[in-house]
Amino acid sequence: MKHYAKPLAKLISELSKLPGIGGKSAQRLAFHILSMEDKEANTFAEAIIDAKKNMRYCSICGNLTDVDPCSYCADTARDPKIICVVESPKDVMAMERIREFHGLYHVLHGAISPLDGIGPEDINLKSLIVRLQNNDVEEVILATNPNIEGEATAMYISRLIKPSGIKVSRIAHGIPVGGDLEYADEVTLSKAMEGRREL
Amino acid sequence: MKHYAKPLAKLISELSKLPGIGGKSAQRLAFHILSMEDKEANTFAEAIIDAKKNMRYCSICGNLTDVDPCSYCADTARDPKIICVVESPKDVMAMERIREFHGLYHVLHGAISPLDGIGPEDINLKSLIVRLQNNDVEEVILATNPNIEGEATAMYISRLIKPSGIKVSRIAHGIPVGGDLEYADEVTLSKAMEGRREL
Repeated sequence: MKHYAKPLAKLISELSKLPGIGGKSAQRLAFHILSMEDKEANTFAEAIIDAKKNMRYCSICGNLTDVDPCSYCADTARDPKIICVVESPKDVMAMERIREFHGLYHVLHGAISPLDGIGPEDINLKSLIVRLQNNDVEEVILATNPNIEGEATAMYISRLIKPSGIKVSRIAHGIPVGGDLEYADEVTLSKAMEGRREL
Repeated sequence: MKHYAKPLAKLISELSKLPGIGGKSAQRLAFHILSMEDKEANTFAEAIIDAKKNMRYCSICGNLTDVDPCSYCADTARDPKIICVVESPKDVMAMERIREFHGLYHVLHGAISPLDGIGPEDINLKSLIVRLQNNDVEEVILATNPNIEGEATAMYISRLIKPSGIKVSRIAHGIPVGGDLEYADEVTLSKAMEGRREL
């Protein structure tokens, strides 16, 4: 079997390194890129280099940003007394989408996962503790993901912070809005029962 | 709702222009690219520019290549008497994978599709006719896709070539090997019956 010409093969190989992009998709994407205008392809390549060069982590909250401190940390209209702890910058965007949280964020860049060899010192946790010591934070909302790693991380952080007297809360688990009781898994359903509220 | 920082937003927007990559996937890919080593990201960006710069169409067959004429057209071990006509360079690779065809190729870069406004003059057809006039081609195998556009293109080319006395054949349609009669669509099944061969 003959192979694609080198520059094309290289592009396909680079594309197939991306998550969720298999060999076939990489091939399709590569052909699409070849069919682009020169200018378009250059813009695409530059966007990669540019993002890589200009995006950094906020020195305060760890969020991805092009200015340091990030726009959330620098925003004086936000309430510095509440910090929402999330696993990734994507989660910050998800929280922002509800337009209801006006506190600050702290991005862990991962969750504690002993099975993967990720301990508390491997995530962006130390800087959170430092933040809590220096500021008048009143509440830390733990919004890590509702899976084993996220729960373990939330438990760990909660135990770490509680002695300081700062209020620690965890986002609620339950049946998603629009979801169907019938299709909810047992754990979610039991969490929903556990977290029931009087009407 | 706040948006991602500009360089990241730009990268996400560029990625979401790719076929089959929606907003969510583009976001995931962008974060993956940001998590790459600087060197890796540069290699990726360079692969795009490099492929775009060095890949061109073979002046003989129209296949994608980094040298002109392409490695198939330049290969003297291949039989120049048989030309296999396909719609895209991907189809050339598919044919090569069976390791049984040793003739030359002709890539149309599309198929006739009146609904999309693609006529015979919009695909790489003229150069095929020129090729047939100048060479001792004995057979043209039409391997366009087995859909309406591919069939129409095959019919059109066959009518165009037949008067010259060159043998024109069409790849067989039928039940795919490993396929299930039960799940075959009516058209495929009727093609399979039509193309039955005596054992």
